[in-house]
Amino acid sequence: MEKEGKEKGLVYKNEMAWEIFSKIILKSKPSKIFILVDENTENHCLPYLLKKAGFETIPETIIIPEGEAHKNIATCLNVWETLSDKGADRNSMIINLGGGVVTDLGGFVASTFMRGISFINIPTSLLAMVDASVGGKNGVDLGHKKNQIGVIALPEMVILDTEFLKTLPKEHIVSGIAEMLKHGLIHSKAYWERIKNVDVSDNSAFNNLIWDSIEIKKEIVTKDPLEKNLRKTLNYGHTLGHAIESHFLEASNKNPLLHGEAVAVGLILATYISTEILSFPKETLEEVTHSIFNYFPKQSFTQNDIAAIINLMAFDKKNRNGKVLFVLLEDIGRHKCNCEVNNELIYKAFEYYKNF
Amino acid sequence: MEKEGKEKGLVYKNEMAWEIFSKIILKSKPSKIFILVDENTENHCLPYLLKKAGFETIPETIIIPEGEAHKNIATCLNVWETLSDKGADRNSMIINLGGGVVTDLGGFVASTFMRGISFINIPTSLLAMVDASVGGKNGVDLGHKKNQIGVIALPEMVILDTEFLKTLPKEHIVSGIAEMLKHGLIHSKAYWERIKNVDVSDNSAFNNLIWDSIEIKKEIVTKDPLEKNLRKTLNYGHTLGHAIESHFLEASNKNPLLHGEAVAVGLILATYISTEILSFPKETLEEVTHSIFNYFPKQSFTQNDIAAIINLMAFDKKNRNGKVLFVLLEDIGRHKCNCEVNNELIYKAFEYYKNF
Repeated sequence: MEKEGKEKGLVYKNEMAWEIFSKIILKSKPSKIFILVDENTENHCLPYLLKKAGFETIPETIIIPEGEAHKNIATCLNVWETLSDKGADRNSMIINLGGGVVTDLGGFVASTFMRGISFINIPTSLLAMVDASVGGKNGVDLGHKKNQIGVIALPEMVILDTEFLKTLPKEHIVSGIAEMLKHGLIHSKAYWERIKNVDVSDNSAFNNLIWDSIEIKKEIVTKDPLEKNLRKTLNYGHTLGHAIESHFLEASNKNPLLHGEAVAVGLILATYISTEILSFPKETLEEVTHSIFNYFPKQSFTQNDIAAIINLMAFDKKNRNGKVLFVLLEDIGRHKCNCEVNNELIYKAFEYYKNF
Repeated sequence: MEKEGKEKGLVYKNEMAWEIFSKIILKSKPSKIFILVDENTENHCLPYLLKKAGFETIPETIIIPEGEAHKNIATCLNVWETLSDKGADRNSMIINLGGGVVTDLGGFVASTFMRGISFINIPTSLLAMVDASVGGKNGVDLGHKKNQIGVIALPEMVILDTEFLKTLPKEHIVSGIAEMLKHGLIHSKAYWERIKNVDVSDNSAFNNLIWDSIEIKKEIVTKDPLEKNLRKTLNYGHTLGHAIESHFLEASNKNPLLHGEAVAVGLILATYISTEILSFPKETLEEVTHSIFNYFPKQSFTQNDIAAIINLMAFDKKNRNGKVLFVLLEDIGRHKCNCEVNNELIYKAFEYYKNF
């Protein structure tokens, strides 16, 4: 309702972001401000936020445990209860400072506490910056099923400050690159060419790519806020990627993957399937696979793993009436939604992945 | 998002309601339909629904335990998990068949499952018909704090069928009358005159009063969907009423009150306070008190009870920046929002209640 205002949900970067932030706080005069962090961002990011924000009163900090395993209703319940115990009211505000788990969970907690209080997202991981920061989706997992519980609600603003990336381990930077690669594949050959060989240590070039990635996502989400069609393309590589991520989380013989690591596999599989079904060019498939393996090591999959992954896929939110529907590509930047894919082809795609 | 469509959230009555219901099911073709009931409505209302609805395939039934004590996140988690286990997807639909606990909890579960699936509310208690069925508020309690977690989301439609009232115990009918009395007090002398002496056994007259009560609520909610001002009047009697209800639920020496029983006390207290602060006519106060005691027996309150109730009141969602703000009346149908009331006056109001 109030959340639908046009000015909401916008991403601002660097110094300008902090100016807008101060204006929003001054204008909305929250009765209390709460900062939601996990153990990592409390240590590595909170001091920077406090320095940049210049709060008159130091906000309350609410700490949740780090990691996807805690992105659930039990953690929400703790945060709701903490808010309630510490006297949060309808005019309180939550600042979510962290990766996708913190911004997704914090956004959901805020949107449902007293039927919705305002919140600001400050993504500190590359993945949260390029993916979770735009579009207002939030939520938590239900068991091993990702993002099953949530709403769509826009934050007052999103602060993009790439200073936070300096606190990230390298594998988390790489994980975020998977979504940037995806934005190239679904949207633009030009962006794909820039991102596929980016030098991450070149700050200025990389920061520009991050910003452009956000712009791509914003354009898609603005054109199709209700996910009728175009927005579905953001799911490219995720139908299998989510299932792979869930499987590695729950299988006793696997170590959990980072989201981007699972999506990277999903991107290769979806592109292979695109070649088979939509005549995506074979030589571009080779190039895509090569570029992704440039960033991401190969994962191993037994036949049992694949069977379990196909089974998990049936639970993906995007599926309709029990059918698993894929977003596929005719070429880079040319998508087709709602493609039916049979299991045999999925096994073949894994074979391609394993033998590359 | 999609939930904002103009045609959503409307209340339809009796036979017409069932026709619209069939059309909505035919048009939206849900992949699966789930009916949420509690133990009571499963027995007393589900057979009637199945008869009226004429489903092609018998929907899955999800049963939650009866009563406000189960209107919490633990129950939501059970329902979310059941939906997930039984293969609900984004195109599934939930029909909430029950009193306010079922419609409030079911609406919240639906609005947050996979970021929102469609739902239809069929209120079966008088309270849910005249209060919970309009306006899209839903949610659950957090500990003893009522409706702390929730969102605003409109059902596809609301079915008002007064046949369900025949299954209700008399005290639940009376409980619902509290909200109808409130609608008279905040909105219209004419309605107040009709409701204050209604003969509940006169079906036709009573059904008309129920419908008019819904119309009053609808008019208020439509004029002020975001609860900036007018909608706050619906909180008349509830600032203390909610706290009284919570206190009777958690105090070891009390039996839980029905919502309307607590609100009835709150209405008398708020009207007394209105007399003291806003010159609400003294003789009308006498009439209001008399009319309410006509339906509701007097409850007893010790000084300790009152202190605990005042303490609980501080947690009400409607409060801003720690101040407890009341809706009060200058006369029947003439409200004033955001009135500050000191604790001394609240003690005096309880004295008036006890000595009447």
